[in-house]
Order: sequence, then C-alpha cells, then structure tokens
Amino acid sequence: MGEKVGTKFQNVKGTRDFYPEDMRVRNWIADAWRRVSLRNGFEEYDAPIFEYLDLFTIKSGQEIAEQLFNFTDRGGRSLAIRPEITPSLARMVNAKIHTLPRPIKWFSIPRLCRAENPQKGRLREFFQWNIDIIGEDSVLADAECVFTCVDFLREIGLTPEDVKVRIGSRPLVLAHLRAGGVAEDKLETFLLLIDKRPKVPPEAFEALCEKEGVTKEQMRLFDEFDRLHDNGRGAAPNEQVAPHLAQVDALFTHLEQMGVAEYCVRDFHVVRGLAYYTGIVYEVFDASSSLRALAGGGRYDNLLEVLGGPKVGATGFGMGDVVLGILLDEKGRIPAEIRAGELDYFVIDADEGLLGEVLKAVGALRARGLSADYCCARRGNAGKQLKEANRRNAARALLVRADGLAVKDLRTGEQRELASLDDL
Amino acid sequence: MGEKVGTKFQNVKGTRDFYPEDMRVRNWIADAWRRVSLRNGFEEYDAPIFEYLDLFTIKSGQEIAEQLFNFTDRGGRSLAIRPEITPSLARMVNAKIHTLPRPIKWFSIPRLCRAENPQKGRLREFFQWNIDIIGEDSVLADAECVFTCVDFLREIGLTPEDVKVRIGSRPLVLAHLRAGGVAEDKLETFLLLIDKRPKVPPEAFEALCEKEGVTKEQMRLFDEFDRLHDNGRGAAPNEQVAPHLAQVDALFTHLEQMGVAEYCVRDFHVVRGLAYYTGIVYEVFDASSSLRALAGGGRYDNLLEVLGGPKVGATGFGMGDVVLGILLDEKGRIPAEIRAGELDYFVIDADEGLLGEVLKAVGALRARGLSADYCCARRGNAGKQLKEANRRNAARALLVRADGLAVKDLRTGEQRELASLDDL
Repeated sequence: MGEKVGTKFQNVKGTRDFYPEDMRVRNWIADAWRRVSLRNGFEEYDAPIFEYLDLFTIKSGQEIAEQLFNFTDRGGRSLAIRPEITPSLARMVNAKIHTLPRPIKWFSIPRLCRAENPQKGRLREFFQWNIDIIGEDSVLADAECVFTCVDFLREIGLTPEDVKVRIGSRPLVLAHLRAGGVAEDKLETFLLLIDKRPKVPPEAFEALCEKEGVTKEQMRLFDEFDRLHDNGRGAAPNEQVAPHLAQVDALFTHLEQMGVAEYCVRDFHVVRGLAYYTGIVYEVFDASSSLRALAGGGRYDNLLEVLGGPKVGATGFGMGDVVLGILLDEKGRIPAEIRAGELDYFVIDADEGLLGEVLKAVGALRARGLSADYCCARRGNAGKQLKEANRRNAARALLVRADGLAVKDLRTGEQRELASLDDL
Repeated sequence: MGEKVGTKFQNVKGTRDFYPEDMRVRNWIADAWRRVSLRNGFEEYDAPIFEYLDLFTIKSGQEIAEQLFNFTDRGGRSLAIRPEITPSLARMVNAKIHTLPRPIKWFSIPRLCRAENPQKGRLREFFQWNIDIIGEDSVLADAECVFTCVDFLREIGLTPEDVKVRIGSRPLVLAHLRAGGVAEDKLETFLLLIDKRPKVPPEAFEALCEKEGVTKEQMRLFDEFDRLHDNGRGAAPNEQVAPHLAQVDALFTHLEQMGVAEYCVRDFHVVRGLAYYTGIVYEVFDASSSLRALAGGGRYDNLLEVLGGPKVGATGFGMGDVVLGILLDEKGRIPAEIRAGELDYFVIDADEGLLGEVLKAVGALRARGLSADYCCARRGNAGKQLKEANRRNAARALLVRADGLAVKDLRTGEQRELASLDDL
C-alpha cells in the first residue's frame, strides 16, 4: 500500500505535484528554453521515456543501473525509465546518420527519473534542457552551445553577477599531467584531485594527495596548474598544453564576438565527472557557488561510436529545472504575474434569466481566440461574480444585462456600453 | 540485450522517436490543446509520471495492473508509470480540497504509458489532453467540457463533417432498463449489449442477446431505446427516463447557445466502458467511424470519494494524440510549414576572413529575440551557404561582406544594403 495521511494518498518522495501556480512557473522556464533554442537554430526532438536498459548501461557503465528505475515487460524485456536523454539522442542520430544533414543542431526538454535519495537540488523526477551539436569538430560548435546557454540565462533574468559559466578543457588537463610525468594509470586520480582542489582547504588537500600517493615532486603540478589561469592568452608552459590552451583562447574570442564573454570564466578545475567527455567542458554555477551546478556539458566525440555508430564529433550540455528553480526563487526573479495566471474576459450576468446570453457571449469570445470564463456555478449575484473575475485576474468584465452589453476594464474601472459583441 | 539491427539499438516497440519534423507536429497539437484550454478558463497542472501502484488499482480494479508498467524501488515500494492521469488529479485535489476555490477547472497534457500490444491507434506511450471540472454538479460544467473539446477540434481544422461528439447519458440508459424490468444484476450485461447494438448486424445482435439470456419480451427494450433518439425533446416514454432526457436536452440547448451544436449528436448507445461514469457521457469519432474514438469522457461524481476524499461532483474527458494524429494525417490537415521549421535569418559571409563579423551579427540578432543561424562548419562559399539558408527555410539572409552588410529576402529575392545592424 502507498503512504497515506489518514485516507489520503501522497505522491512518491522526491517527485513533485505541479498545481497550477507551480505549473505556470515550470512552463515559464520551459517556454524560455524552447524559445531560446529555436532562435539559436536548434530543432526540437524527443525520445520515449523508457528504453532498453542496456542503452543506458553501455554508455555510463553498470553503476548507473543503481541510479535508474528499471523493470521487465510481459515479453521479458529489460527496460528502464531514462535517467538522461543523451543515449537516446545518440541512438536516434545513429539510426539516420547517413541522411541527416550536418551539423545536427538539436534540443530537447525531457522528463527524466533517477532512483536517488532526494536532497536539495536533487529529485527523483525532473526536467532537463539538452542542447547538442553533432557532426562538427570545430570549437565554433562549442561556442554555439555556450552562447545558447548564456542566451537563456540572460533571457530568464540572470546577470553575469548572478551566474558564471566556468569553462575548462579535459585534454588540456590531461596534457599538463602527462607533461608532468604522471603515469597513465594515475591520470584519473589526478583529475579527481584537480576537481577537488578549489573545494577543500589546503591542509585537507595535502592530506588527500598523500593518501592517494602523490609525491612531493608531483605536488608542484597543482601550483603550475593554477598558473595556467593567470597566464596571458597563448602563454603555454609547454608544447603539449599549447594547442589546448589555444583552443580555449579561440573559444573565448568567439564568445566575446558574440557578446557573452562577461558570463564566462576560465576554470581548468572543471573536468566533469564522466569519463566520456573528450574536449572543452563547462559547468554553470551561481556566483557564490552555494548551490549545485545549474548546468554542465562539453565535447563528447566517442559516444555515437560506443553506441554502434560511426565516430562523429559531438558537443552539448544539460540544464535541470530543480537547481535553476531554487536560484530564481531565492533571487526573487520569478515574476508575480507568472504565478498568478490571467483571463481576457470574465462574463457576468447583471440580471437574472440571461444565462443564454451569457453562454452566447462566452462562446463568441473564445471563438475569437480570447480567453473567457463565467460562473458556471450560477450561485452569485453580479457583485460576487465580479469578485470571482478579480480572483481570476481577468483584464475585463463583460456585463450582460437585459438592456444590453457593457465592458468594464478591471484595472482602470472604466466602463463602456456595447451595441453588440462585434463592438468589442 | 536490446533488439538491435546490426550494431544499432532500437526504441522499444509501441514507442515513438520524435525527430524534429515529428516533434513540430506534436508541438503543434499540444500548443493548440494548451491555447484552447487557457482560453476556456482551464488552468494547467501536472503530476509525477510514476505513483504508488495502488493509486491506479483502487480506481480501476486489478485488471488495470495488467495494463501498466510497474516496478519496485530500492525502498521496496510498489510503483507504476501512470496509464492515465485522473487518479493523480483526484489525489491532488483531495489533498487541497478545503482551500481550492471551486469549481476547479484544470487541464493537463500528460505523457502516459500502457503495457498494451501496439496496434493502429494504440501505442505503449502517448500523450493525452485531459480537461476536468471538479466541484460543480450543474450540466453547465458538462457543457463547458464539450464546448472546449469542440473548440479544439475547430481550432485544429476539423469540421462538423469530419468529426462528431456523440453524447449519451449513463443514468438515462439505466433508468430505461430499470423501467423495463431489467434486474439489477443484469444491468451491466444490458449496457454492454446497448454499446454493441450499432456495431453488429441485426442477426448477430440477436444471437448475442440469446447467448446472454435476454428474453423475447426484453428485446423490445432495444427498439424502444432506439426511439429515444427520434423523439422530440422532452418527449420521454416514462417518468423514470424523463429527468435524464431533460438533462440531455438542457445540455444541447447550452451547446447551441455557445455555437457548437453542429458538432454534437445524441447517441444513447454511448455508455463508456468504465463503470465509474455517473452521468452525461460522450465520445468523439471521425464521421465515418473508421478509427477508434478520438476522445471520451463524462461525469464521474464518485471518484474523489473512492480515493479518500469527500463526495464532489466531477466531469471531464481525455483526448489522445495517436488517433488524432492519424485522422489529421489522413485528411491532409497538417500544414506543410508546420513540418518544415523556419528561421528569421541565416547569416552568410560573402568574403573570407569575416568570421568575427558573422559571429557579432548572429549574437546581435539572437539578442533581439530573432532566430538566426550560420554555417559553423565553415566549409562552403557564399553560394553553398545560401543553399543551406534555403534548406533551413530562412526568411532572410544577412550577407556579411568586407564592404558592409546587406539583407536578402529569400522569398522575393529583394536585397538592400544596411549601414549597420541597427538598420535592420
């Protein structure tokens, strides 16, 4: 049996009910995602909410199976609710790889589910905006994705003081480590340490390094690494790092040209957890970094091949609705009128026995594409109906009286007579 | 392992991949559902895609468990992907029944999953528009729902010649059967026979009746039943049927007043399968009835109570996207420009070395809310880029040249010089 309060059912923990006010906020965000994607030249796609289980495990390994809801259908197939959409994207693109014109610029706003323990910013069901460009190796494709990300942040009312896109490069970090003599089988350990460095105090970091077997000699790699940020453009410490630093420089040049550089900072500590990233990587944080990342992404040139397709360059990011919603709410950036809803007209019968006329007016207004409603409860006088009109946030009341029609502007209080509905 | 073709993964049978062209059609339908709902005074809500399993089995009985995808989470909870949204709606309304102003006019466009065998018009994953009014017993609430349904059909380009809302009344049929002496434990059998009557030849129907133990005397009930349609308004054969016939008459009067009567016909054979309907019921069919029902609904006054709430009147309907999509496609009513997508501007560099200027222009156009793209592949001359602009259905090309800017209208071919981007 489900968890009940008294005789009432509840939703499952970590999931959300969207009452109309919540839904309007969700739609406000999703509409902005869609609008920004389209104006940046991305086309929308979607995939089924459940797929074969192994589509997800092949990309991200068996450990992701712990994080997803899986089940078996009556045909004995192992299925799972999608925890991310990128494997489905790769599957769909692979299926038509020879007919789709490239670059493929696609976006999606999937509903995703993960069997996580719910905590702040992390739920078991959420929505995630996904932007991807497939079939283009140039850093211009990465610039397109970062620009689109910033274009949304700007659109929803977040400034460069509120949020930053922190941009790094995974091959740059690897080149730096290899040039410093780190053995291949130690690279993953060092990547994790670099990710940790800005997040823990120096003593704790040293203890961590000692525990992982980092030598005193190797410790200087971290200091040298920090200086990569401070160096002037192109001033690479060695030729292994140089091409990757040049690529980051090129990306920043393009972001400046497109007018969004003030939202972006270099941060080579950003390496992204997933091993499948192969180039430029980035994460979006609120300026104080008090919340989890709002978004994260980068280049992943091997995924299509892993899922049975050809080797084709790909780059993109995902942005969830949960952390974003918390940030917008904390900063008071969700407009009150978004939560409130509205109507163009509320039709009121000022005299009894006019139901037929009311219905005619309601039908006519809606047929013209205007939003209109009336009290179908039929239990209130004109005053009560007017109160309902205000509660519903109607812009105007249409007064239906035995001697004719009138329109009342509910913001100004102004009222005028109408010869007929055509006179609106 | 999943089903593969060569090394390629596939989606699960009965589910759909939405490539951009398919997605634009899906959005075109969903946008119309949303637009029509809002202008009819409904507010959008949504619930999680998975709920406790028993939320679904309590309403519709154990047999629905056969039709849904259920699974157990790591906490041992029995969960299921929603096969319908009405139980979640009832749960949400019950949880706030004392604070929500009535009538509650809500709509939703949920993604639903059913473990069915896929066939024409029936898939394992689909979208369903749901319209509900809770807390209003008057037939005006039913009229609002039927009107909203027709308002959508009209909006999407379906005429009264294409589709019909077939309206019946479950209590009317029950009153007719009881007045004719049918025993209580036989009512369900007779309801099924009445549902079957217009669908099978007379001889087959008689055989069916005989098999079900209907007496010769009782056979006349079916003929009398048919005459209920032909009778003038209010001309009820007996006082048991009279109030229900009067209610149907009132509904049709309101639908006439609202201007949608031509889409509606009386059809008392419509009784809806689910026993939970308690009043007016209706189904929408294409005029030739060659497809499954496009939509179905009616009054269900007991559901909130069954799910632990108070007894509150409710009425509403659901319309899926699958049969609707087949009908629109068969009738050629999906506009070509919906499938095609479009852009406001495609930016083209007519001279080499102008990438920076191109990116400035792209960034500026998008910052103004215009949709704009360019060839980030950088592999084509101006002619090839223009071809790409046409493939992308761009309205205009912005030509970036060493000596200035020009805009070319790609429909008329007209071209004009620009002093700067402000001159657009």
